[in-house]
Amino acid sequence: MQALKDRIRRDGKILPGGIVKVDSFLNHQLDPLLMHQIGEEFHRRFRDEPITRILTIETSGIAAALTTGLAFGVPVVFAKKHKSANMSGECYTSRVYSYTKKTEYEVSVSTEYLRASDRVLVIDDFLATGNALKGLTDILSQSGASLAGIGIVIEKSFQHGGRELREAGYHIESLARIREITAHDVLFDD
Amino acid sequence: MQALKDRIRRDGKILPGGIVKVDSFLNHQLDPLLMHQIGEEFHRRFRDEPITRILTIETSGIAAALTTGLAFGVPVVFAKKHKSANMSGECYTSRVYSYTKKTEYEVSVSTEYLRASDRVLVIDDFLATGNALKGLTDILSQSGASLAGIGIVIEKSFQHGGRELREAGYHIESLARIREITAHDVLFDD
Repeated sequence: MQALKDRIRRDGKILPGGIVKVDSFLNHQLDPLLMHQIGEEFHRRFRDEPITRILTIETSGIAAALTTGLAFGVPVVFAKKHKSANMSGECYTSRVYSYTKKTEYEVSVSTEYLRASDRVLVIDDFLATGNALKGLTDILSQSGASLAGIGIVIEKSFQHGGRELREAGYHIESLARIREITAHDVLFDD
Repeated sequence: MQALKDRIRRDGKILPGGIVKVDSFLNHQLDPLLMHQIGEEFHRRFRDEPITRILTIETSGIAAALTTGLAFGVPVVFAKKHKSANMSGECYTSRVYSYTKKTEYEVSVSTEYLRASDRVLVIDDFLATGNALKGLTDILSQSGASLAGIGIVIEKSFQHGGRELREAGYHIESLARIREITAHDVLFDD
């Protein structure tokens, strides 16, 4: 998605250690029009699938998942990282290791919002190690719902998550695939 | 907003202790079309203000803030509850007491995404004690930005937050004001 790649190159901030910060439009501040275009693009790429629900993970997956849900006209569920006091009832739960924070956390989805009859599109903002996505696919397996595909805003293709998930047979569409982050530029796969 | 009130009465789950759970369309699962209508409604109510930025707080304020930002055509900033490893640089920070969780947490916004020249509309999903909003208005004061108003999806008018904030002179628009939650029904102010 050219508009996204242009935006990453223009507004992404390159930090030491191969990190590009996209806080100004994706992770802390959101550009609503870009998010809307991202939702339309995911719809274009997965519209042949009879999607019944979008699944994402809080916090920064929510914006892209919402606009995608609007494009498909289906509900959006966000997995919670910490069970809240109001989250009574049965949940599907999985443990995720955060590579960035070097700690494990739990993700949960209420059994009410995933059904065995669902055909689910998973949306997330980043794919690097793929650990969060593995947690979501684990939750989907528990629910019996089927996974139509995975839509990623930014994939770091120099990390192993995308390759592993594709080898496992998942259909992944990434709107921008970062091959390399140099001291002064972000290079994409295509 | 009648569509919202109808939805709360239809799909809200009344729990003991005067709690109505709106997990099925606002807090865990999102109804994208309803969120879109909520954004349009906030725009209708505040469109005479020269809004330059929307401010909300993660997690469940993000969806309504995003659709409102889309309606206004301005960026959306969400305050973070925990500083992330990637959140380098200067932040405005405030401490918030969570009545639900009986614990204090910190909210932060990067100084890059709030300017003294900004005219800000604050959006949040719930208003009860008003503690989260007081944290956001504190952050706005630190930045020098001016507050155009506060848009709330659901206000519990039987709690004191809304009254206190209105008495302090804030312009608050709540799309549904819950006066009372009985064992079998949700009653609204108007």
